[in-house]
Amino acid sequence: MASPEIDALTQALSRLPGLGPRSARRAVLYLLKKREGALGPLLAALSAVEARLTDCSICGNVDTTDPCGICADPRRDQRALCVVEEVADLWALDRSRLFPGRFHVLGGRLSALEGVRPEDLGIDSLIRRIEAGGIDEVVLAMNATLEGQTTAHYIAERIERFPVRVTQLAHGLPVGGELDYLDEGTLAQALRARRPVA
Amino acid sequence: MASPEIDALTQALSRLPGLGPRSARRAVLYLLKKREGALGPLLAALSAVEARLTDCSICGNVDTTDPCGICADPRRDQRALCVVEEVADLWALDRSRLFPGRFHVLGGRLSALEGVRPEDLGIDSLIRRIEAGGIDEVVLAMNATLEGQTTAHYIAERIERFPVRVTQLAHGLPVGGELDYLDEGTLAQALRARRPVA
Ligand SMILES: [Zn+2]
Ligand SMILES: [Zn+2]
Repeated sequence: MASPEIDALTQALSRLPGLGPRSARRAVLYLLKKREGALGPLLAALSAVEARLTDCSICGNVDTTDPCGICADPRRDQRALCVVEEVADLWALDRSRLFPGRFHVLGGRLSALEGVRPEDLGIDSLIRRIEAGGIDEVVLAMNATLEGQTTAHYIAERIERFPVRVTQLAHGLPVGGELDYLDEGTLAQALRARRPVA
Repeated sequence: MASPEIDALTQALSRLPGLGPRSARRAVLYLLKKREGALGPLLAALSAVEARLTDCSICGNVDTTDPCGICADPRRDQRALCVVEEVADLWALDRSRLFPGRFHVLGGRLSALEGVRPEDLGIDSLIRRIEAGGIDEVVLAMNATLEGQTTAHYIAERIERFPVRVTQLAHGLPVGGELDYLDEGTLAQALRARRPVA
């Protein structure tokens, strides 16, 4: 069979979401055939990312700079803050270009089942950002799951003492749906119709 | 949006077969979240392969050693030689563990349309291997396409002067089918029923 090095590459690729053993083998063959055109650029891109990768100390985004590109962008609306569960959600919303403000990544959602408590999420850092002032609106963009909504309500209670408008994404989202899987149209609709937390 | 480095990584991954822009983004997010568990190993595996990658000077396989692992394996039957169009076909047949001999990779198939002539393929090197002696059977394992079969017939004519049995994969293969996409059962059937070239 293939050499240990090629086997290791196939295995590393097959662990990526969306790639099984079969497609990983095809990807490896493609890379081996296109050394200059594909393997080289992929290696260079991975190295560059690996060397610079960092968590944003402000929002929890993952980027190659700290603060991340979004937090460092002066054209972003400083007054609007969108709270998401995961970096993947931040990316999905940012890709849609519908939200002009900044983000805050919790790093998960409250879950009794998985033992995730408030102190395990970036909630204290969120409150410090709001306390620092300058924020008019906090959009709670949790997933439309039971745990996501529990998390949103918990945060809404924790921040109701601040003079900020707290909204959440409209429930045009399919029940049980995860932000990261939705098309931009659905996201746009949910964002446009966002409403104050009851 | 994401940093230039992360964009470059997403683009490099999205060019792999089986990964579109969307799954490439998910793969990148996965890598960013699992720096030690996924990004590190993938980078190490790619580096190791890139540093050692070479064409086998005997059979045309791509491997991290020259001769390749198959050509260097003394347990392989030296008397049987399987001729394939592409490295992907060699891997597919080798994975099935049905062929105990060695391989010869042509690097393509004859094609008037694409201007691929005999001298563009590894046919001269194949003839030199047969001339060197010690080979009893040459299995022509071309794809069941018009061009694949044209290539097989061309090679059969070129080597009919040698005292070797020339066979080809049985036409249990679906018409137009490409070796690399077939399941092992179909491959096994086709290999078992291989027949002398008419
Ligand atoms: Zn940030
Ligand atoms: Zn070889």
